[in-house]
Amino acid sequence: MDLLKQAILEKAKVINSTILNLDQVLNHQVDPQLMMKVGEEFALRYRDAGITKILTVESSGISAAFATAYHLGVPFVFARRKKTLMTDADSYCERVPSFTKGIVTDIVLPKALIAARDTVLLIDDIIANGDAAKGLMRIVEQSGAKLAGWGIVVEKGFQRGAEEIRETGVRVESLVRIKSLEGGTVHFA
Amino acid sequence: MDLLKQAILEKAKVINSTILNLDQVLNHQVDPQLMMKVGEEFALRYRDAGITKILTVESSGISAAFATAYHLGVPFVFARRKKTLMTDADSYCERVPSFTKGIVTDIVLPKALIAARDTVLLIDDIIANGDAAKGLMRIVEQSGAKLAGWGIVVEKGFQRGAEEIRETGVRVESLVRIKSLEGGTVHFA
Repeated sequence: MDLLKQAILEKAKVINSTILNLDQVLNHQVDPQLMMKVGEEFALRYRDAGITKILTVESSGISAAFATAYHLGVPFVFARRKKTLMTDADSYCERVPSFTKGIVTDIVLPKALIAARDTVLLIDDIIANGDAAKGLMRIVEQSGAKLAGWGIVVEKGFQRGAEEIRETGVRVESLVRIKSLEGGTVHFA
Repeated sequence: MDLLKQAILEKAKVINSTILNLDQVLNHQVDPQLMMKVGEEFALRYRDAGITKILTVESSGISAAFATAYHLGVPFVFARRKKTLMTDADSYCERVPSFTKGIVTDIVLPKALIAARDTVLLIDDIIANGDAAKGLMRIVEQSGAKLAGWGIVVEKGFQRGAEEIRETGVRVESLVRIKSLEGGTVHFA
């Protein structure tokens, strides 16, 4: 995805050696034409996987999930992040730490929105330590649905999330892999 | 938008006379083909308005904003909802009550993402009392950008938000207007 690399080089801001601000690429401002190409690419990579549903978590995964679902012709669902001490018998709920925000949140999805007969493609904008990712995977597991794999827009390759998921045998497709942010610059793998 | 009315009749759940659960239409699960038609319709209605940017608030407005931005060929930005007591000189922040959630949240948008030269179309999935809507409008006002109007997917016509905004002279286009939820049924206007 050269277009995506170019957008990152032009618009992303390196905050320090582990934090990259993608506000103007993915997180706050979105170029829908570029994002539709992102979705097209994920759809191409998973076109033979029998996907019936896309799952992501709010908010910055929604655009990529939308575009991928559009190209695959399937619905997408998004889990919500909540700080809650309540359990709800009608929802799956997984507690995850957030690397960027430094807090713990619960990822919540109504059980009615994912079924054991589904084949699920998980989509997210960025993977770092993969805590939210693993929470989503536990939700898919609880639902009994089949997990086809991950589509990640930007993989921070210097953090362990994506590799740890690959090591469990789950397919992870990332469109752009960042090797490091050393020297205030984005270095692609 | 007959397709949208049909989806609401098939998949929405009336909780009581003021609350409609649209989890399977807009809020949690999204049919991207239907949502692209929603975006196409907003783009058509605002095609001569000189829109340069779409603005919405996370999370359930993002899909409609994405689809509209795609059809208009402009970027979209989404404000985040936060509970914060901090003020940030680099962000616009408006405190709004939430009718559905029964809490107060702050709507936050980095100042860099909206400019005085922009002509902004505001998009949201649902309007009820319009508190979040008015918060977004105050952000546009502070930025000095021109407000072209609103695109609302579902207007709850028995609550005052949309009408109050129209009364200030702002254009509000809603695709579906619900007259009441009496008797556990959706009645369209």
